[in-house]
Amino acid sequence: MVKIAVDLMGGDNAPASITEGIMSAVKENGALEILAYGLKGSYTGDHPQIKFIEVTEKVESGDDPVRAVRKKKDSSLVRATKAVKDGTADACVSAGNTGAIMSAGLFVVGRLKGVERPAIASLIPNTSGKGIMLLDMGANSDNKPKHLYQFAEMASIYMEEIEGRTNPEVGLINIGSEENKGNEVTRAAFELLKDSDLNFTGNFETRDIISGTIDIAVTDGFTGNIVLKTIEGTAKSMMMEIKDIFMKNTKNKLAASALRKDFGRVKDLLDYREVGGAPLLGLDGYVLKAHGSSDALAIHNAVRQAVRMAESGALEKIKAKVGGQS
Amino acid sequence: MVKIAVDLMGGDNAPASITEGIMSAVKENGALEILAYGLKGSYTGDHPQIKFIEVTEKVESGDDPVRAVRKKKDSSLVRATKAVKDGTADACVSAGNTGAIMSAGLFVVGRLKGVERPAIASLIPNTSGKGIMLLDMGANSDNKPKHLYQFAEMASIYMEEIEGRTNPEVGLINIGSEENKGNEVTRAAFELLKDSDLNFTGNFETRDIISGTIDIAVTDGFTGNIVLKTIEGTAKSMMMEIKDIFMKNTKNKLAASALRKDFGRVKDLLDYREVGGAPLLGLDGYVLKAHGSSDALAIHNAVRQAVRMAESGALEKIKAKVGGQS
Repeated sequence: MVKIAVDLMGGDNAPASITEGIMSAVKENGALEILAYGLKGSYTGDHPQIKFIEVTEKVESGDDPVRAVRKKKDSSLVRATKAVKDGTADACVSAGNTGAIMSAGLFVVGRLKGVERPAIASLIPNTSGKGIMLLDMGANSDNKPKHLYQFAEMASIYMEEIEGRTNPEVGLINIGSEENKGNEVTRAAFELLKDSDLNFTGNFETRDIISGTIDIAVTDGFTGNIVLKTIEGTAKSMMMEIKDIFMKNTKNKLAASALRKDFGRVKDLLDYREVGGAPLLGLDGYVLKAHGSSDALAIHNAVRQAVRMAESGALEKIKAKVGGQS
Repeated sequence: MVKIAVDLMGGDNAPASITEGIMSAVKENGALEILAYGLKGSYTGDHPQIKFIEVTEKVESGDDPVRAVRKKKDSSLVRATKAVKDGTADACVSAGNTGAIMSAGLFVVGRLKGVERPAIASLIPNTSGKGIMLLDMGANSDNKPKHLYQFAEMASIYMEEIEGRTNPEVGLINIGSEENKGNEVTRAAFELLKDSDLNFTGNFETRDIISGTIDIAVTDGFTGNIVLKTIEGTAKSMMMEIKDIFMKNTKNKLAASALRKDFGRVKDLLDYREVGGAPLLGLDGYVLKAHGSSDALAIHNAVRQAVRMAESGALEKIKAKVGGQS
């Protein structure tokens, strides 16, 4: 039996979509037990594999992350992460405030010894079909070269152990393909990566982020967050333009109806729901952040991913490889 | 008579598209004179408003920018920028190696006194219809807060004087909208911008880059370059997916033919040709970088833009406002 702690109160569609998502997850997997943390009345189901634990507080999206985690000790988020810390759960999932999840990860679950900066890693869907893991997505805002190097180590283990990618290719996000390109941080990180035992393929330009075939792209948390939001903004604006064209007049509406199914593919390509949550790497336990606007399908997929994490040996391998560094 | 120096040898389609572009520019504007710098045989036209100046060298796309500008003194790029320096031309345009254009700007035209770091500014097309000026696009890789502040000052003057935007709105590219968000550089730049006489609207998230209504988005050269390449990559991948759908089968081909004209709009939205070149701000003269893959239309538009620059009072205003700073 694998046990996943779930924060029922986090995310734009909580608790309804979270509840719906865990219901469908337990239906699919008979060997799964969900520990569902929520305010009174947030869960009204009655499924033998779901254990509802009533809490008295919740972290709001506008809360200061560090204060909220320190003060709201009986919040659904803090209780769910605490379940990971004390071994009651094998992994936890929350679609709440990203900063608060990271804070709970750091203060409740704790940082792995030797890891200088934990990171949020996001699997970005792309045309290669397998997606690129991008990190850090914003847990940090200023990073040193050594941090980027550790991100690459942790992500390589994650991709190998949990996504089943053998010898995953690692690229360094940069403003040119040549070795001497970039800023002080990327130039120094390049040297560290080049001399490592990782499958480092050199600098990676974000014009290839959607079409690229590498497995992992490392960068500082500021740049990673900017890249993700730029993709989102560009894709959303283009989809809106396309929608306008489809609705423009009767002729277009007719033509659009013939294409609509295929156009779903373009939308899916940039659909976070199909790819799942963003794991926090570098913590002494498995914490998965689901997208803030997750619907039931996204939560179901995030739970699936948490199960894969819990059943993997990634944490032990990260401990062994990165944990020994000072 | 306004005189524009043009580098015939720079860009993927040089010299053919450059020649074609200047031909159409002089046809449109009887008060324009082009000084066209190129290798022997690169210009075979015979137009009274185009003066061909034969040179013996050209800067290659793979050349080291600084070395090339220092060594190739009789290259079309160096000669074109020299024409601006000595007053023979009012502005110059090149579609060549970005680094070399920046180097020629710095070493030949020279930096304006008081400007700590010149920048490359790019007008990004967007759904607001007017475009956002993004800078720095990669002239710098490590920037201090003061640099970002000067970028905002110079771009505000450019947009007001050359693009006719009154009191242009300036945003600071950041990973959140709240004042305390970001890395060390953006937090300090926020303070400088907040206390300035610029029309500063606060932090700007790149998820709004295509739909945003602000006039100017400032950032360091590393981030700016990443943002531009991420937009390019995302848009290109989506257009390729769309093309695949249109060609998939007879049914789709038929539907696509009805929509093709309207879809041109989406493509145009991200079409650099319609928006023109990227001005180098902070130099003691007008230097405009056209896109490396410029075709004749892009060059024509770039020349038009150079004429607007040459006829404006932007340089004097930048000198007066930024030039006095130490």
